[in-house]
Amino acid sequence: MPQTPHIERHFTASETVRDIVIGMSDGLTVPFALAAGLSGAVEATGIIVTAGLAEIAAGSIAMGLGGYLAAKTDVEHFALERAREERETREMPETEAAEVADVFRGYGLPPETVAAVVTGIRADRARWVDFMMKFELGLEEPDPRRARRSALTIALSYVAGGLLPLAPYFILRDVHQALAGSVAITLLALLVFGYVKGRFTTHRPFRSAWQTAIVGGLAAAAAFSLAKLIG
Amino acid sequence: MPQTPHIERHFTASETVRDIVIGMSDGLTVPFALAAGLSGAVEATGIIVTAGLAEIAAGSIAMGLGGYLAAKTDVEHFALERAREERETREMPETEAAEVADVFRGYGLPPETVAAVVTGIRADRARWVDFMMKFELGLEEPDPRRARRSALTIALSYVAGGLLPLAPYFILRDVHQALAGSVAITLLALLVFGYVKGRFTTHRPFRSAWQTAIVGGLAAAAAFSLAKLIG
Repeated sequence: MPQTPHIERHFTASETVRDIVIGMSDGLTVPFALAAGLSGAVEATGIIVTAGLAEIAAGSIAMGLGGYLAAKTDVEHFALERAREERETREMPETEAAEVADVFRGYGLPPETVAAVVTGIRADRARWVDFMMKFELGLEEPDPRRARRSALTIALSYVAGGLLPLAPYFILRDVHQALAGSVAITLLALLVFGYVKGRFTTHRPFRSAWQTAIVGGLAAAAAFSLAKLIG
Repeated sequence: MPQTPHIERHFTASETVRDIVIGMSDGLTVPFALAAGLSGAVEATGIIVTAGLAEIAAGSIAMGLGGYLAAKTDVEHFALERAREERETREMPETEAAEVADVFRGYGLPPETVAAVVTGIRADRARWVDFMMKFELGLEEPDPRRARRSALTIALSYVAGGLLPLAPYFILRDVHQALAGSVAITLLALLVFGYVKGRFTTHRPFRSAWQTAIVGGLAAAAAFSLAKLIG
């Protein structure tokens, strides 16, 4: 299965923006929630900084390398499916031609137009396979050079997002003051990030802003309550 | 942009499998790496269990709710784009018809066949818009009921994946013994999980198995070194 989302013309942002969104939404949320959770259980900021940085290292590598492998898998998946379609157009051309015809009959084209289209598309095997890839399988050819850049963008965004909520624990000695500072900084960051993300993905950026803040807040509240309960 | 991957016919697994893969790959990796990292910095398993459970709570909620909102955004994005295509076919039918013609000219169809196809597709506005959604934008209509089930599947898979590496820290008092147990359990789980994931997404399940184990191992090693350095 393609593991990276499908990009189409109407989407105005680049793939880099998408990778920043993927890395930063988890980076802002999980280290923040973990630090908040530990604030309910421990008295020293030192252990929170250690746990937070360990989480950022683990999360950024897991997401970055995960994104890298997913992008590589997409490239391979595309090549495999293309080879398969190519084989099918050679070994059972009538079945594949019937699949092309089905696509167009579904749009109410009269039989003679369907026949003309099928003849035209079959005329060139490479184009025929291109057609099957895009219109039957809905697969776009992934850019093989994207994997490395995508991995790096996701990982760095996770780190950038994760250091923000931890900053107060670096500076302040008192856990409760640091927690208050972290909550304030992170909620603000989530609102701004949610707004910007919403500008790119929906027509309702303000709703995206408060939804993003609520996800972060709920995750932090759950981690805090759980840690308080057992800590 | 569509935030959930595009599913096509050749993919043999269900969307539920995809959600389990999403939740479990992070669930197995990040809590494991965090616990390993803290094992390099603290002497008591209690704080590792607390931090690990807080991370699982935060991560599962962040990923589950994140998946929920992404699926909702896809549904909305589709509706917005559909409304826009509908408006365009009404307000500037010639431009949209030219876009249909472009699609087919690109596949080398002769002009008279292109004209026949365009006439056929234009004949029914709903079908015309359907065609533009799928063939111009590459968008499939998302299932609006999927969001809630998807969120729950992702969150529960994260919890299931995350509890496995933590289990030794629950049972054993000694941090180093628990770490050794966690490494053994998690590497085994990552190999099995990577293999199963590879069966569904590539034709090389064994490579997927060791790749998945390496991602988890690298994340844990980075977290461990960082925590050791500052802890």
